[in-house]
Amino acid sequence: MRIVILGGAGMLGRKLVERLAAIGSLGGRPITGVVLHDVVEPALISAPFPVSAATGDLADPGVAEAAIAGRPELIFHLAAIVSGEAEADFDKGYRVNLHGTLKLFEAIRHAGITPRLVFSSSIGVFRGPFPETITDDFHTVPQTSYGTQKAIDELLLTDYSRRGFFDGVGIRLPTICVRPGKPNKAATGFFSNIIREPLAGHAAVLPVGDEVGMWHASPRAAVGFLIHAASLASGLIGPRRNITMPGVSCTVGDQIAALRAIAGDAVVARIRREPDPTIQRIVSGAAWKFTPKRALDLGFTADRDFAGIIEAHIADELGGRIMA
Amino acid sequence: MRIVILGGAGMLGRKLVERLAAIGSLGGRPITGVVLHDVVEPALISAPFPVSAATGDLADPGVAEAAIAGRPELIFHLAAIVSGEAEADFDKGYRVNLHGTLKLFEAIRHAGITPRLVFSSSIGVFRGPFPETITDDFHTVPQTSYGTQKAIDELLLTDYSRRGFFDGVGIRLPTICVRPGKPNKAATGFFSNIIREPLAGHAAVLPVGDEVGMWHASPRAAVGFLIHAASLASGLIGPRRNITMPGVSCTVGDQIAALRAIAGDAVVARIRREPDPTIQRIVSGAAWKFTPKRALDLGFTADRDFAGIIEAHIADELGGRIMA
Ligand SMILES: NC(=O)c1ccc[n+]([C@@H]2O[C@H](COP(=O)([O-])OP(=O)(O)OC[C@H]3O[C@@H](n4cnc5c(N)ncnc54)[C@H](O)[C@@H]3O)[C@@H](O)[C@H]2O)c1
Ligand SMILES: NC(=O)c1ccc[n+]([C@@H]2O[C@H](COP(=O)([O-])OP(=O)(O)OC[C@H]3O[C@@H](n4cnc5c(N)ncnc54)[C@H](O)[C@@H]3O)[C@@H](O)[C@H]2O)c1
Repeated sequence: MRIVILGGAGMLGRKLVERLAAIGSLGGRPITGVVLHDVVEPALISAPFPVSAATGDLADPGVAEAAIAGRPELIFHLAAIVSGEAEADFDKGYRVNLHGTLKLFEAIRHAGITPRLVFSSSIGVFRGPFPETITDDFHTVPQTSYGTQKAIDELLLTDYSRRGFFDGVGIRLPTICVRPGKPNKAATGFFSNIIREPLAGHAAVLPVGDEVGMWHASPRAAVGFLIHAASLASGLIGPRRNITMPGVSCTVGDQIAALRAIAGDAVVARIRREPDPTIQRIVSGAAWKFTPKRALDLGFTADRDFAGIIEAHIADELGGRIMA
Repeated sequence: MRIVILGGAGMLGRKLVERLAAIGSLGGRPITGVVLHDVVEPALISAPFPVSAATGDLADPGVAEAAIAGRPELIFHLAAIVSGEAEADFDKGYRVNLHGTLKLFEAIRHAGITPRLVFSSSIGVFRGPFPETITDDFHTVPQTSYGTQKAIDELLLTDYSRRGFFDGVGIRLPTICVRPGKPNKAATGFFSNIIREPLAGHAAVLPVGDEVGMWHASPRAAVGFLIHAASLASGLIGPRRNITMPGVSCTVGDQIAALRAIAGDAVVARIRREPDPTIQRIVSGAAWKFTPKRALDLGFTADRDFAGIIEAHIADELGGRIMA
């Protein structure tokens, strides 16, 4: 099976290719090669199959065509301008997240291939007022440009799939926490910073109140979703091709309590409160309580709880060691 | 108040400008001019204000800019490729309904005007399986390219409005019935044909079964929605800027029964049954039972019942006379 990962230099792209290297096959079919495509040069890894890199801006003419020239049977479309940057730079967000995606979909259509396409959507497609819990048929009326672009991509994915141009699955990812590495421009970055930085002995800024809630998944769980989506039978998915992923629902206060229980007061004391009205506006009122029935029925599995998310981070990123 | 009607040569565009001519003002402000824009030459009418025509393909470069060069305070965006044609011609539908709309929105944004923009969306944004009745927070997962394009336009309208680029309201129109004049390429055309043609003494083809249901509004009611949307206070609409319009819910069987009661058996006998699987596929499973609470709360008003819709047609189009 030939695979292309768009956004392959990103956090999830890197973790995904590592997991693919570890498992070597998907849905019983051996992986014969992975192309990592990104606007920045992706780092290569060693794997039981060839891994190659390609660079280019997906929104530029010809780039999408080149990225899929190897006629992949499976495409992960993870390339995106994330929430904070798409809000700050209106044109850039639309250029990459809407037009880049449209260029990719058109390139696939005109190449006459019909790959499984796994698209990383986001719970940012939802915005309140919400019912007590958000079910699978709740409307997608975002209040950010990022959420708007993801919701548009979902609609395109559904229509292109219905037309038979490819076999798409959109997975609405929870906020990924604990995000490893450096902070990116996602407005939701602090949910990770307040766990990752204190565990590594550094200070972290908390720009919102303790009452702010979020729907979380570990990078480990998110990669699990991507892999599971890649091999789901198309008939099981049906015509509604975008699915809210399961997650862990908790407030910032709950996150801090879990951190305290695992790592102690000294670690928690590294969190500094500095309210930021813009971030508060974006994330308060975000969707954080779901009943993701379809995903659970289809076999997607979430982290156990927020402590489980912290433990996954300590195991996967810190070699089991914390700076107490 | 300067007004531009895009799609001004279309059925609703013509009816709208006639109504504007009759009322002369909107929300207490006198209308000072109306520009009818369309890809085909719009017919001019006499009115208490200047009415001018402009032609061009909204998806062509520079056309949207030219259409709004008069810096309108109110724009009705009715230009579209309708459902049947957008399904038959994938590229044309996306070109006009997605990229044409995007070009219009960008032109407004860059012109630095912030008009009220009334957009004619459609209940085609919905697709089953449905609950017993469709409420205002049901998800928009279309199963036609037309519905997809309208749902995307709705999302863009919400985001551009949130950003303050214009003050948008999307109204999800029911199927307009009885549509006057010649049949267009909408897959839903037969809902009108089976009433209009028999009343005028002609045969009509019914391509679907009696059990097929639809959500209807007369042209009179639809123009009422457009006018009401034009003068609604922005603060009343709130951040969810697309609103399902009220309508009349009935089956083809109910329509025929109403026609029989008003016009008699001889008129009904002009309906010929010729099943068409494509049309049956598009319209059966369409959304036809709604609880349009928001619209009703905002003061939008529907036709009384299907008999009322037939009576409106006889009064508005046939001068009160039917070919019994
Ligand atoms: N991390 C989260 O919390 C989260 C939550 C929901 C959805 N998602 C989605 O998951 C995907 C991956 O997220 P991530 O956390 O790895 O983000 P990331 O920012 O680490 O990765 C995105 C990658 O896309 C690349 N990219 C940006 N513009 C591009 C362009 N024009 N052409 C080609 N590549 C381009 C970036 O260089 C980057 O490597 C994204 O689509 C994101 O929207 C992430
Ligand atoms: N009639 C219905 O049952 C119904 C139901 C729901 C929504 N709507 C929507 O209401 C609007 C008006 O509907 P209508 O029944 O008057 O349709 P119509 O086809 O009579 O009018 C649409 C007009 O748009 C024009 N147009 C098409 N492509 C164009 C382009 N590239 N540039 C400029 N103009 C272009 C057409 O020439 C036409 O005059 C449409 O947006 C339609 O999608 C209609």
